[in-house]
Amino acid sequence: MHDAAVDVRPKTLGRTALLSVLSESPEAARVAAPFRVVVGHVGTMDVQRVIAAIETAARREGLINPGYAEEHALYHAILEALHGVGRGQLAFGNLLRTVALRFAIVRGPRLPGDDTEWIAVALYGTIGQPVKGNEHEVVGLGINHL
Amino acid sequence: MHDAAVDVRPKTLGRTALLSVLSESPEAARVAAPFRVVVGHVGTMDVQRVIAAIETAARREGLINPGYAEEHALYHAILEALHGVGRGQLAFGNLLRTVALRFAIVRGPRLPGDDTEWIAVALYGTIGQPVKGNEHEVVGLGINHL
Amino acid sequence: MHDAAVDVRPKTLGRTALLSVLSESPEAARVAAPFRVVVGHVGTMDVQRVIAAIETAARREGLINPGYAEEHALYHAILEALHGVGRGQLAFGNLLRTVALRFAIVRGPRLPGDDTEWIAVALYGTIGQPVKGNEHEVVGLGINHL
Amino acid sequence: MHDAAVDVRPKTLGRTALLSVLSESPEAARVAAPFRVVVGHVGTMDVQRVIAAIETAARREGLINPGYAEEHALYHAILEALHGVGRGQLAFGNLLRTVALRFAIVRGPRLPGDDTEWIAVALYGTIGQPVKGNEHEVVGLGINHL
Amino acid sequence: MHDAAVDVRPKTLGRTALLSVLSESPEAARVAAPFRVVVGHVGTMDVQRVIAAIETAARREGLINPGYAEEHALYHAILEALHGVGRGQLAFGNLLRTVALRFAIVRGPRLPGDDTEWIAVALYGTIGQPVKGNEHEVVGLGINHL
Amino acid sequence: MHDAAVDVRPKTLGRTALLSVLSESPEAARVAAPFRVVVGHVGTMDVQRVIAAIETAARREGLINPGYAEEHALYHAILEALHGVGRGQLAFGNLLRTVALRFAIVRGPRLPGDDTEWIAVALYGTIGQPVKGNEHEVVGLGINHL
Repeated sequence: MHDAAVDVRPKTLGRTALLSVLSESPEAARVAAPFRVVVGHVGTMDVQRVIAAIETAARREGLINPGYAEEHALYHAILEALHGVGRGQLAFGNLLRTVALRFAIVRGPRLPGDDTEWIAVALYGTIGQPVKGNEHEVVGLGINHL
Repeated sequence: MHDAAVDVRPKTLGRTALLSVLSESPEAARVAAPFRVVVGHVGTMDVQRVIAAIETAARREGLINPGYAEEHALYHAILEALHGVGRGQLAFGNLLRTVALRFAIVRGPRLPGDDTEWIAVALYGTIGQPVKGNEHEVVGLGINHL
Repeated sequence: MHDAAVDVRPKTLGRTALLSVLSESPEAARVAAPFRVVVGHVGTMDVQRVIAAIETAARREGLINPGYAEEHALYHAILEALHGVGRGQLAFGNLLRTVALRFAIVRGPRLPGDDTEWIAVALYGTIGQPVKGNEHEVVGLGINHL
Repeated sequence: MHDAAVDVRPKTLGRTALLSVLSESPEAARVAAPFRVVVGHVGTMDVQRVIAAIETAARREGLINPGYAEEHALYHAILEALHGVGRGQLAFGNLLRTVALRFAIVRGPRLPGDDTEWIAVALYGTIGQPVKGNEHEVVGLGINHL
Repeated sequence: MHDAAVDVRPKTLGRTALLSVLSESPEAARVAAPFRVVVGHVGTMDVQRVIAAIETAARREGLINPGYAEEHALYHAILEALHGVGRGQLAFGNLLRTVALRFAIVRGPRLPGDDTEWIAVALYGTIGQPVKGNEHEVVGLGINHL
Repeated sequence: MHDAAVDVRPKTLGRTALLSVLSESPEAARVAAPFRVVVGHVGTMDVQRVIAAIETAARREGLINPGYAEEHALYHAILEALHGVGRGQLAFGNLLRTVALRFAIVRGPRLPGDDTEWIAVALYGTIGQPVKGNEHEVVGLGINHL
């Protein structure tokens, strides 16, 4: 863990999503068969803007199919990931804190050999006071069936 | 993200903790100056056993100083990490689900240049029904000042 | 359950409230001795507007007595019903979701033979994205002593 | 709402589930095309026993397909319904309270014309002290995509 | 605030309950017209034992009337007070922590001039690891109408 | 508890904070060696304004050292105290309720003989409808290591 990269090869859905938000070269993350990956970032004090940013990216990239069923799956995966970020409260500005987050949305089997489709949402970044530097890291992962 | 390892070099406290639980060679994770890292794993249906396993490992490896102050810091870092795992409820068996988790406890500055000490607890593994294979990945990260 | 109405005769406080919001002829619901029933509906992204709509209807119809005690009873019955609607979070627009709800407020004994007075609040409708059709049903019931 | 049955004909998934638990003739509830309905009841102080009772009934009646995906869908629908019952805390005996619940699990479209499949779990019964008569009604509804 | 007692004369319901648990001479607390006060203490890792201890004391001293209505009022006042103690989770041993609490149950008007009856539950003591000395203070207050 | 002041001499961190908010002569509360005390009050429907008022007072009086570590400690002490006030939900106006709170921030050892430093935040006041008089008392206490 000094200069060499850690050997953390993705093989499962959640790990792929986590490594996508942790990687310093997110573009590389997009190539991850059998998984499809969409990445992005959002900085805000409003929880709904995090949700909207992720939903918009997923739709724009065609990661989820039209119709409510997959929107519903994605929404709940986002909410679950937000629990890791909020750690007890799904609120940011209402609790005088702000977030800067990278997100990855990954679609595919849970792990090699699984013949069902799932969606994962990973969040990684910082949370803290609305004062530059007064923040620490946070992470979240939500996984749902499609 | 195929055969080559992802370039996710740890530089910050939380990332170091996350990569330690995501890495396939956890022993390597222990060498991570300026951070000190303790790793372990626990499988259980009882939340308190996850807490106990992490606290015991931290004490045994001397990662936290004797006295209540650092125990208190570690305890709350664990609870925060568990929010990512439980995603709304800090309960496993009481909600008919079980976890198998790797954990990493990391002590050090929040990031290079920070002259204060913090503690991070990362959790990564699976949650699901008490039926082998009926589970998906989860992650959690808690960070607290020392 | 095809063309014939289901035989779900109200006999208890909560059932009366639930059937009032589920019925397609809400006006009929108002005649329900020994219960007094007030019904209404509200569509919003703000939790406080649901609360205000129900409180206003109860006061306007004289269902609760003046003074803080019965206001307090009604408020907590509403919050409890909202837990069924929110399922983990008492927030709508802040989590990028909207609701369209029918509500019934019922005053009376818990069940025949009970000589104490209680208040029930039932909610039934839909929750979902702020996109027409992308929603599913929700229900909630709160019961409190007067 | 006196002697005549209320006109609450089920047309949607959630309403069908709710009327199934509210009906006094639950057997009739099983015939509800295009919905498939499984009903049952459980009395307990342990949340996990409610979950187990519903999961067992769904499997035994073949309402959900083998494999983790539909088990996952059902599990989260149950948890969501339990939020309506617990109203803030998913705990019964741990908070010195007990429940007696009827449950209905319904599979089908959200509403006529919907060509996707969903699952609903409705709970209705009482919660209260472990003293006969010291209880009031509760309801819960969880809906998830399959 | 050195040697002299602080001038914190109780005039309202909640303050009377709080001072009763904070006082070093709890017997004196019982004389507090127009309020009726019951005090006690409980040490446990089980939330339900705190609830049971308070309910038992209230019944034994005749502070609440027989019947479910006042039991219901007391129960919810206890739960609200426990939120201050648990600060996010209503669980003790399940989260590897233990409590030692003094409690006061007070019945009376909210404040002088109020002609309605309310019940307050105050909790004060310590929470911490199941290791002597590794704990800090906690407080909680719940107030409900009768 | 009639005319004489209650004998509630502060000796511990939390008790000092609680008595500071309960006292009718808050100025006296400031003299409380070995504790340093800052008091203030805030009335609002926004949770973030309570947080901001307390943080501002602590900084202005130099109760916490510059840098993120002690800001982080104070923030979480505030959130914990707010759990006692919100009793299940960290929201005021969003749930159609308002608060008027006195706060005390206390820095010092947990109790005599403790050689570590901690921070306590006590809140005491009223919560209720945005209608004068329709409110009842609330209290909260958060304690964190520095």
